[in-house]
Parts: sequence; structure tokens; C-alpha cells
Amino acid sequence: MQMPARVKIREVAPRDGFQSVAAFIPTDQKLGIIELLVQAGVQEIEATSFVSPKAVPQLKDATELMSRVPRKGVVNAALVANLTGAGNAVAAGINELVVVISASEAHNLANVRCGISESLKNLDDIFLVAQQNGVLVNGAIAVAFGCPYQGDVPEGDVLELSEEFLSRNASSVILADTTGMASPRRIDKMVRTFIHQFPGYRFTLHLHNNRGTAMANLLAGLLAGAISFDTALGGIGGCPNVPVAAGNLATEDVVFMLEDMGVETGIDLDKIIRAALELEKVLGFTLPGQVMKSGPRLTKTTRGLASCSKYW
Amino acid sequence: MQMPARVKIREVAPRDGFQSVAAFIPTDQKLGIIELLVQAGVQEIEATSFVSPKAVPQLKDATELMSRVPRKGVVNAALVANLTGAGNAVAAGINELVVVISASEAHNLANVRCGISESLKNLDDIFLVAQQNGVLVNGAIAVAFGCPYQGDVPEGDVLELSEEFLSRNASSVILADTTGMASPRRIDKMVRTFIHQFPGYRFTLHLHNNRGTAMANLLAGLLAGAISFDTALGGIGGCPNVPVAAGNLATEDVVFMLEDMGVETGIDLDKIIRAALELEKVLGFTLPGQVMKSGPRLTKTTRGLASCSKYW
Repeated sequence: MQMPARVKIREVAPRDGFQSVAAFIPTDQKLGIIELLVQAGVQEIEATSFVSPKAVPQLKDATELMSRVPRKGVVNAALVANLTGAGNAVAAGINELVVVISASEAHNLANVRCGISESLKNLDDIFLVAQQNGVLVNGAIAVAFGCPYQGDVPEGDVLELSEEFLSRNASSVILADTTGMASPRRIDKMVRTFIHQFPGYRFTLHLHNNRGTAMANLLAGLLAGAISFDTALGGIGGCPNVPVAAGNLATEDVVFMLEDMGVETGIDLDKIIRAALELEKVLGFTLPGQVMKSGPRLTKTTRGLASCSKYW
Repeated sequence: MQMPARVKIREVAPRDGFQSVAAFIPTDQKLGIIELLVQAGVQEIEATSFVSPKAVPQLKDATELMSRVPRKGVVNAALVANLTGAGNAVAAGINELVVVISASEAHNLANVRCGISESLKNLDDIFLVAQQNGVLVNGAIAVAFGCPYQGDVPEGDVLELSEEFLSRNASSVILADTTGMASPRRIDKMVRTFIHQFPGYRFTLHLHNNRGTAMANLLAGLLAGAISFDTALGGIGGCPNVPVAAGNLATEDVVFMLEDMGVETGIDLDKIIRAALELEKVLGFTLPGQVMKSGPRLTKTTRGLASCSKYW
């Protein structure tokens, strides 16, 4: 298997995860988790969103959080949906704006309450604010592999949005499988097409596990040439109503698998597992991550496991 | 991506799943699930085990179950660990014996209470009983990708056991990742080595998800040439103490992914999802399967999902 020597992991639990939990997680607890992520070696963190606190009350502490996050050796990103959010994020000292536009009109309307053309109209101003302040812009394309409202999403629509971002000097594009509608063949095709059309440009796969395919999708992406992935500690994220069904790939599971295949992430497996266990304590419910339950590969069997060794 | 046109799915929930549930599932309910599996198109079912009812009381109804299972167009398999079990299984009208031996001495001792050499000594008698009764023998190799007691398992030990089975005219071998210690590169290597060493022989990958890699492992197997997989409805199986951490690949998730990639399984996705939902009712707890929660790919968003479409 042809594998890259090293991949980049963007940790999105503080944004995609905490926004999906019904309760507001106190800022101190959010910072505690971010601190553990950084100690484990995470270098890129989508830390929060600068959006309407009415729409996402879970992240209403964005400005305070940003005033206290670790900054040394870390790229702190925040999601924004319009110019107001971009201005607030830049003022709060963010390193990277994640500007999200959906590849389907219906999802963009539901997500940011305006059509794609209006989202695009705002792009020039957002990029100007970012560039004036030395902040990177990462263009996130939601529902890039299918939309729960529209159904299939033409590849051309995703490539057009990528062009809108990259032609404005976005540092990167995120291709998001927002509700887990991709399978490996779709990922393979999109990744190869993207690399062919935009050679040398960074892109990140953001994969949800709604249909159980997220880790296989990551592998397909990896084999097709993707070297950057969004993951979330403990596999949190997605929809607060069905957390287990719709989470992100668990950071620690991805680190485990990549490390076992000789692909470096820069993240320490033991430390990221400890961070996931701490997150589970903070949230108070069982997280979808797996290696946090089983331990690293050569973990010797515990009493519990031993009692299960009946007839494999 | 090079994919086979069609793969075989062996359904193991009635054996690997029901043995892992603390409660005894009444025979009628087991048969109800098996009936739904067959209606969905499943053609190979590991229906039960003929082992000590003290060791696995959940499957103490093996003989009664076998007297009532659907037989038309179905290969009914049962797991056995010794000659007594094999005799009972054959008498009950099983089509295929699954004889399990571990690739590590420690796991074989824990699993079937004897060393590998003693397990091997019994093989001739078991094969004789099978052949005299026109019953297939499927040789299952537990902990083929690593053992929770021993640690790493040499590939040569797995190939030697394969040779023991295949030289006695086993119809197939099962390579089991009993506690989810494989990652795609290990699967790729084992599958390619196996195919090289035993060209034309059937083998099946049996993949547990203890560390989140099972679906990626299936994809790696598929890309390396594997065309037969064990899966369990709803993703049940593994250890009763940590069901979510140690389940099998969910049949319906595998069917979804393969179908979406154009790989035929002969199993109807809608019907297998309904079977998984019925299984969840029978068991009374949330199952690890994902597509049973989200629905097929083009399922339109429900109210619950719509409320989650904030900022992807």
C-alpha cells in the first residue's frame, strides 16, 4: 500500500464537537481539553465559531476562549459564515478563518440562511479583512459528497466552489462529507479530480460517520493522495440528537490507525487517548471513539476482555 | 479503485452476536431475526455454536434452533471446538462446521481450554465426521492479526494453521481479527500473502472494530483481493462487557458501502436495515450500526437532522 510518510490532522472537536452537545460546556473545561490536545501534539485546532450566539449558544464564549487558548506552535482556526463573524474572529486573534459555503443551495439556506450567490458575494470582503490582518482563509465546502436536502451533488459544483476559494488565495479547501453520504469510491474520485484540477493546493477531508464508512473513506482518501484530515477527539460532532450516528472520525482512532501503518501524525497516541477519556468525563456520556475503550494495539487483556475470549 | 463485482457476506450475528449478549435470547426471537436475514438475501449464516452450554449458555438452544432454521438457499454454519461439538452439529443438520483454533497458544488455552497441538490432534476426527456426512468444514483462525495475551502473532503461524485446515480439504479459512488489532496495512499484507500461498482457496475476513479500523480493514482487504467477509447485523458481537467497543462490522453498513461502490452482495439494503432495527428492539439496547440510524444514502433529512444543519 502506497502511503504518505506524514499527514496533517486538524482537530475540530472544540468547534464541531462542542456545538453538537446540548449543554454549554464552561470555557474553563473547553480550555482544559484544548490544553490536552496541544500537549498530545495537535498543531491545528478549529477552536470555535464566530457566529450568532442565538444559532449556536454552545460557542457564545468564542471571544473569551480565544483570549486564553494556547498559541505557541498552534494554528487556531474559527468558523465564520459572514463578514461580521470574520471581523470578530480576526479581532479575537484567530490565525485562520474557516469560511463555510454549501455545495447545495438548499443546505446553504438551512445552514447560513442565505443562498450560495449571497455567500459568494461576501467572500471578497472576508478575504480582504483576513489578508489585511495576516490571517489565513480555509474554504470549507459543506455537503461536498451529497446533501440530505438535495440528494446528489454534482462534482462540478464542488470544484466551482473550490475555484471561488482558491482564486481568492485561500490557503486551503475543506471537502466536507457533512452527513456521511460518501463511500470510498466517491472519495477516491473526488480526491483524484481535485488534485488533477488544483495541483499543489492543500485540501482537507472532513468525514462524518453517519453510515459507518468514515474510516474507510479516510483510507480511500489517503490512497488517492489526501494528506490532511479533520478529526474530532472522541469522535464527537455532528447532530446533538443522534451523536453516535453522526460524529466525526475520532482523532485517537485515526492516530492509532495511521501510526500502525507507519504514517506520522505528530500526535502521541497515549496522550490523545487520555485527552479523549478526559473529554468523556467532561461531557458525561459515552463517546463513539473506539481505541479509547480498547487501548493501544498491544494492550494486554484485562479481566473484562478475558471473560470474552470464548470462541473468539 | 479496483473492486470485485461481487462479494460474499457471512452473517455471524446469531452466533458471535447472541453469544455476546448477557441475556439468553429466546429461540423464537433468534429465529425471527434469522428469518429477516434470509428475507433480506443473506445466504450464509453462522447460526449458533455447539459448545458447552456452561461456557456459552446463550446458545444452549443450538439443537432446537437448528431444527427450525430456514434451509432453502441458505448455508447454515455452526461453530464447534471439538469432536463432541462436531458430532452434535452434524446430527442437528448443519451444512458447515466452523472449527476454531487460535494462532496463539495463550488464546487457544483461554478460548477452548487446550493447547494448539491438542486442537490440531482432533482435526482428523472432526474432518472425518464432516466428510462422512457431506458437511463442509470452515477453518477459523482466531487472533490472526494479534493476540491480546501474546501480542504480535507471526504471519507464519497463521499460514501454518491455514495449511492444517486446507490440507485436510477445508472448504475455506476464516482469518479473524478477534480483538480488533489489525490496521489496513496488516490486512493488505496478510491477504496478499495468503492469496500467493493458497491461490484459489476461499478465505474470509472476520473483523472486529475494537479500535475503529474495521471498515477500513475491509476496504484494504477488498483492494488486496478478499471477496468474502464476516459481518453481524447491527454490528453486535465481541465482548458482552463492552459491546460498543468490540462489535463486528455491521452487515447493513457493509452492504451500504459495497452497494454504493457498485459491489454486489445479494443483500437488500432496506430489508437488512429493517432487520437491524428489529434486532435492536429484541435486544433492547442501542446497536453500533450506523446506517440503521441514518438510513440509506439518499434519505431526505428529517426534522431532527434539519436542526443540526448549523454550520455543517
